[in-house]
Amino acid sequence: MDTTPISSGKLRGLMKLADASGRFKMMAIDQRGSMVTKLAEVLGIEKTDVKYSDVASLKTLITRILAPNATAVLTDPIYGHPYSVTEIPRDVALLLAYEESGYVSEGVSENERLSNPIDNWTIEKAQRAGADAIKLLAYYHPDASKVTLQHQQDFVRHVGDECEKQDLPFLLELVSYALEGTTKSVEFAKQKPDLVIRSVQEFTDPSYKVDILKLEFPADLKYTSDYKDSAFYEGDSAYDLSDVRDICQKLDATSTLPWVILSAGVDIEEFIENVKLATAAGASGFLCGRAIWKDAVQFYPDNAAVTQFLENEATTNFHNANTAAENALPWFEHQHFGGVENIQLAKQSENWHQEY
Amino acid sequence: MDTTPISSGKLRGLMKLADASGRFKMMAIDQRGSMVTKLAEVLGIEKTDVKYSDVASLKTLITRILAPNATAVLTDPIYGHPYSVTEIPRDVALLLAYEESGYVSEGVSENERLSNPIDNWTIEKAQRAGADAIKLLAYYHPDASKVTLQHQQDFVRHVGDECEKQDLPFLLELVSYALEGTTKSVEFAKQKPDLVIRSVQEFTDPSYKVDILKLEFPADLKYTSDYKDSAFYEGDSAYDLSDVRDICQKLDATSTLPWVILSAGVDIEEFIENVKLATAAGASGFLCGRAIWKDAVQFYPDNAAVTQFLENEATTNFHNANTAAENALPWFEHQHFGGVENIQLAKQSENWHQEY
Repeated sequence: MDTTPISSGKLRGLMKLADASGRFKMMAIDQRGSMVTKLAEVLGIEKTDVKYSDVASLKTLITRILAPNATAVLTDPIYGHPYSVTEIPRDVALLLAYEESGYVSEGVSENERLSNPIDNWTIEKAQRAGADAIKLLAYYHPDASKVTLQHQQDFVRHVGDECEKQDLPFLLELVSYALEGTTKSVEFAKQKPDLVIRSVQEFTDPSYKVDILKLEFPADLKYTSDYKDSAFYEGDSAYDLSDVRDICQKLDATSTLPWVILSAGVDIEEFIENVKLATAAGASGFLCGRAIWKDAVQFYPDNAAVTQFLENEATTNFHNANTAAENALPWFEHQHFGGVENIQLAKQSENWHQEY
Repeated sequence: MDTTPISSGKLRGLMKLADASGRFKMMAIDQRGSMVTKLAEVLGIEKTDVKYSDVASLKTLITRILAPNATAVLTDPIYGHPYSVTEIPRDVALLLAYEESGYVSEGVSENERLSNPIDNWTIEKAQRAGADAIKLLAYYHPDASKVTLQHQQDFVRHVGDECEKQDLPFLLELVSYALEGTTKSVEFAKQKPDLVIRSVQEFTDPSYKVDILKLEFPADLKYTSDYKDSAFYEGDSAYDLSDVRDICQKLDATSTLPWVILSAGVDIEEFIENVKLATAAGASGFLCGRAIWKDAVQFYPDNAAVTQFLENEATTNFHNANTAAENALPWFEHQHFGGVENIQLAKQSENWHQEY
């Protein structure tokens, strides 16, 4: 088997992101837009009236209590990093988000989504600040306009180039969206496998220099007939469980890179099913935020109640997700690397330090 | 108390180098010159006939077996890093040496020592390759010629500036030497406290931008009367144990930075005494190489025998050193930081990510 040699910085970074057995059990607390929206709702105020310090201190609390369960914590450099960095244990890796929260549609159809970088933030800064890897969220719909596709592809390629320059692992998160109608529908559930798989086809191209893909579950269990007795079932089915298993297998066969599953705000029960199905098909773990901790936000600003939720329900959620991920494929066992015994440092030689 | 705010990269780096309680239990395997000399002796060949692959593979074996006991591993980018990087566990930090092994005396008295960088190696490369911190060994004798002092001071300042630029912790190792005679004498033992303490006075100046000092034990227990029944006693005393305790206290009072103790090739029994005395006086742990593993080298190239020694005696040595360091002062409790509750991220604000 032809495996890919790996550069030193990416190798150390990948080792740090996963547990010692190579499985990713990562927590996301880089939410900005969605957290502001939720805090506005909870506090009964306008989004523009949500204070920086509210977001920063809630993130600090979540990070402090939950980070010890994670192999890595993904946070953002605006609200998250400056106040939470001291809360991330030494043996939990640090992932920093590169993209500005949300999306814009300037110059394209109002249903299309363009991602952009955070102002005055660079991958070189992230590395100096202690990041072990970079995460980029790119919205992607393979049937969007050429202008939109080009913009998103160029953006991903830029981050891939910069990560290569700094020798940091590049974790690319792909999020699909509906060009018409809503993602919360049986119609979109039917489209989703195709959208996720075609996006993976695009971004596994070596020119993007991605190291790990962070993917949506490629189907929607809310519209899967076998879950009709679950709390999350929406009453209309796009497929059955055997179809979903096939879709996960097809995704895994398409992904020439290790991949992890994201939670996109679903409830924990559904997320655990996602993790089980994804890892059974070959996923290497998860990078999960809201499914674990979102129900804590409703108690804000009662920090004692937030803390109690985080120490109890949220911690249990995390443990359950970790257990579900025990079946994940270690990243170095992915065909891209071909097993721990085949991991090969790029340019390994007596002259490595000169040529690096 | 006036404490010093700390930048993000240095903060994460220091957290990774120490254990969760802030104590440094670090292993050095960055020896080059001394390892080549020893291998030549063991193999009965000339130093110039020692192969690169012998040094690299011995370092790999030592790193594989002993690194799991360490909070951080210091290796070199020539023989060490390219072949050992996969052997350093995810939760063990990586320190990379910056200086060329040994010293030169070109243009100065033949007894004086000038340190130099490794060719084609930079601190920016070290960071990209995954280093969590940089170590520089500088030979220093405060009574050396002006030219020598200036060269060494300029070199340290250069590394301090580069580490600040990359926001990596800078660990400075100071090693004294004899301008006349030998370091293995009661005369030198008498000079040593003064040499070590005056060197610390120099390099704690903020202009050098050092984060942690790696120091010789500031006295020599081979010449300490209370150890006359030990295997390492040399038969002539420069001081007694109470003097040695005072010297350690004086060193600690002089060091305005956290400091750790080095082993300089002494036997493990003596090193354990050094660690106990240094940590009782306020040291934050150790960075120890040969005292732990040097006796493994004599078995090379019998890798089974090397392995057996490393898994047994050397592992026990490491455990004993770790136990002796349980009494160390956590780095964040040093007066420089003023306690964990006073750790303050530099430029912490809503605009941190823009100003960083």
